Amino acid sequence: MSGLGEFDLIRRYFQRAVGPHRALLGIGDDCALLAAPAEGVLAVSTDMLVEGRHFFADMDPAALGHKALAVNLSDLAAMGARPVGFTLALALPDADERWLAGFSAGLFALADAHDCELVGGDTTRGPRTISITVMGEVPPSMALRRDGACPGDEIWVSGCLGAAAWAVDERLARDAAAQSAPIPGAESLDASLRAQAWQRLERPEPRVVLGLALRSVATAAIDVSDGLIGDLGHVLARSGQALASRVAAAGADTPAVLGATLDWSAIPCHAVLQTASVERRIQLALAGGDDYELLFCAPPSCRATIESISARLGLVLTRIGQIDVRPGVRLLDADQQPLPIHVRSFDHFR
Amino acid sequence: MSGLGEFDLIRRYFQRAVGPHRALLGIGDDCALLAAPAEGVLAVSTDMLVEGRHFFADMDPAALGHKALAVNLSDLAAMGARPVGFTLALALPDADERWLAGFSAGLFALADAHDCELVGGDTTRGPRTISITVMGEVPPSMALRRDGACPGDEIWVSGCLGAAAWAVDERLARDAAAQSAPIPGAESLDASLRAQAWQRLERPEPRVVLGLALRSVATAAIDVSDGLIGDLGHVLARSGQALASRVAAAGADTPAVLGATLDWSAIPCHAVLQTASVERRIQLALAGGDDYELLFCAPPSCRATIESISARLGLVLTRIGQIDVRPGVRLLDADQQPLPIHVRSFDHFR
Repeated sequence: MSGLGEFDLIRRYFQRAVGPHRALLGIGDDCALLAAPAEGVLAVSTDMLVEGRHFFADMDPAALGHKALAVNLSDLAAMGARPVGFTLALALPDADERWLAGFSAGLFALADAHDCELVGGDTTRGPRTISITVMGEVPPSMALRRDGACPGDEIWVSGCLGAAAWAVDERLARDAAAQSAPIPGAESLDASLRAQAWQRLERPEPRVVLGLALRSVATAAIDVSDGLIGDLGHVLARSGQALASRVAAAGADTPAVLGATLDWSAIPCHAVLQTASVERRIQLALAGGDDYELLFCAPPSCRATIESISARLGLVLTRIGQIDVRPGVRLLDADQQPLPIHVRSFDHFR
Repeated sequence: MSGLGEFDLIRRYFQRAVGPHRALLGIGDDCALLAAPAEGVLAVSTDMLVEGRHFFADMDPAALGHKALAVNLSDLAAMGARPVGFTLALALPDADERWLAGFSAGLFALADAHDCELVGGDTTRGPRTISITVMGEVPPSMALRRDGACPGDEIWVSGCLGAAAWAVDERLARDAAAQSAPIPGAESLDASLRAQAWQRLERPEPRVVLGLALRSVATAAIDVSDGLIGDLGHVLARSGQALASRVAAAGADTPAVLGATLDWSAIPCHAVLQTASVERRIQLALAGGDDYELLFCAPPSCRATIESISARLGLVLTRIGQIDVRPGVRLLDADQQPLPIHVRSFDHFR
């Protein structure tokens, strides 16, 4: 164990001479001071990553530094907010300088790419746990909330799905095999595909630029962190409640329930899923979690705009279904026949 | 273990129908949306509490809910900032509903007392860890920074010191005794004093109102969390750097180093320390940590103002020493003779 003290650790790895420095007062006082967003509201989100639950204990520290911030930036992206700054609370079993150097390098590389400043934090000894609170800004009328989806809206998703969950599965299978028998022979997949899947798990790319581009386009948005079906469920629940309020306020007595129908043939599964069974592909792509793509809704009139955003950003955006007024989520195959959805989203307490 | 899921847990214990509700959008979306402070800057601070390191595993959950927020509000107090809202990231070994009910009750009682809204959070399974990020507002010119102390400023502290550290010591001694022999006989202290000390450890009162009152009075402030000597050291270091910059900018070549001289007979030790030796009282009161009082500096011309603030708030404010230009911190007895300071502040990595 290193003799590095708490304040040396902060000074050496987290207090920087270079960087964006937009805070009026950064690390080293009781609080950071941030200028209020000029014409927006402050968007705030927090995520906690626990070793053994959200990441493997042997994860490359630079990748972990990247991912810990990425999952938070992903929440800003889903809100259409522009990153401003973040705080970092870090519990570590020891002050391992090699680990700290890697972690802070990965963290700051992503922070700088998004012009998002580390403004404060706390370090302590404890089971390895990373808690980041990120702050961004967005004009209030442009925020991409979860509650604006309407019947007839089309459902879109960025990028592709399922690769991160595939990588987790592969690792768990490898660990299980190592305990009993030789590594199984099911390693026929192309090495570059496997590497891509691991990249998706360990270095997710928060869709911040997409979120900004969707500000005046999407009626609702969420980031796909716990699995698409579950996250879509959050949009349906919140948008359904909001619709019911509007219907009630208008004095109508039409029931206002929202559901969704998804087109399985349109779902952008990552290529690493190509050899998996349909059941497994549905599970990984629609309930796998850790994708950090954006799911968003928009009226059909916005198709051309969305396609031009896709072209401009060089990011695939796929129309995968539609919001309707039948409760629940339906998955249809290419012949419009229902496919069974036996998926369960990630729940940290089950 | 309870079958309570993550989203039920949040709904049941952390999403409230009542409360301040100043956020434009609170719990339940990707981010919370907060209106920007009208004429201030945003003050942000974060603290992480880990079971077994910052609190005993059997700590009353309501007290823990109080303390987890109190230590963060204390940082706002030390900045002269008015609380606005906070996020909560919570790792728990299981979804124990009795624990959650107590924790959230203690948390919200303090939050409501300071009109500070829970705007978002994250819950996950893991070793019990609580990370709160608190946000407040302060006009930038009125922020109580650490770097404004000047030679000749008097050093003040609120309340009394050492009781929380005494309670920790008592508990550790009791635990050690329980493992080997009967509980030791050194229990001659009055039960109400002991209870007061435990109250100080478990339910510290963040000095938010004092921080607001000191806005146009104090030249520097910090909350006493790691021990007075260590925390005063942070003020001296930051203020010394700032002074050196000003001296250099003015073209002068006088060395600018700040130190402090403290008057031991003035230090407001908690009554629970009355039977302890001088050495132990110095250790507990000046290096004990967990007091969450405010240490602040102000020119002698502010004495009357500070005394009137003390009377108005019903809070003892004690003048304990003076900023000078000799490096280091000196502790003098009633005869102006130096007392040895062999204290070490709390360091999370040593």
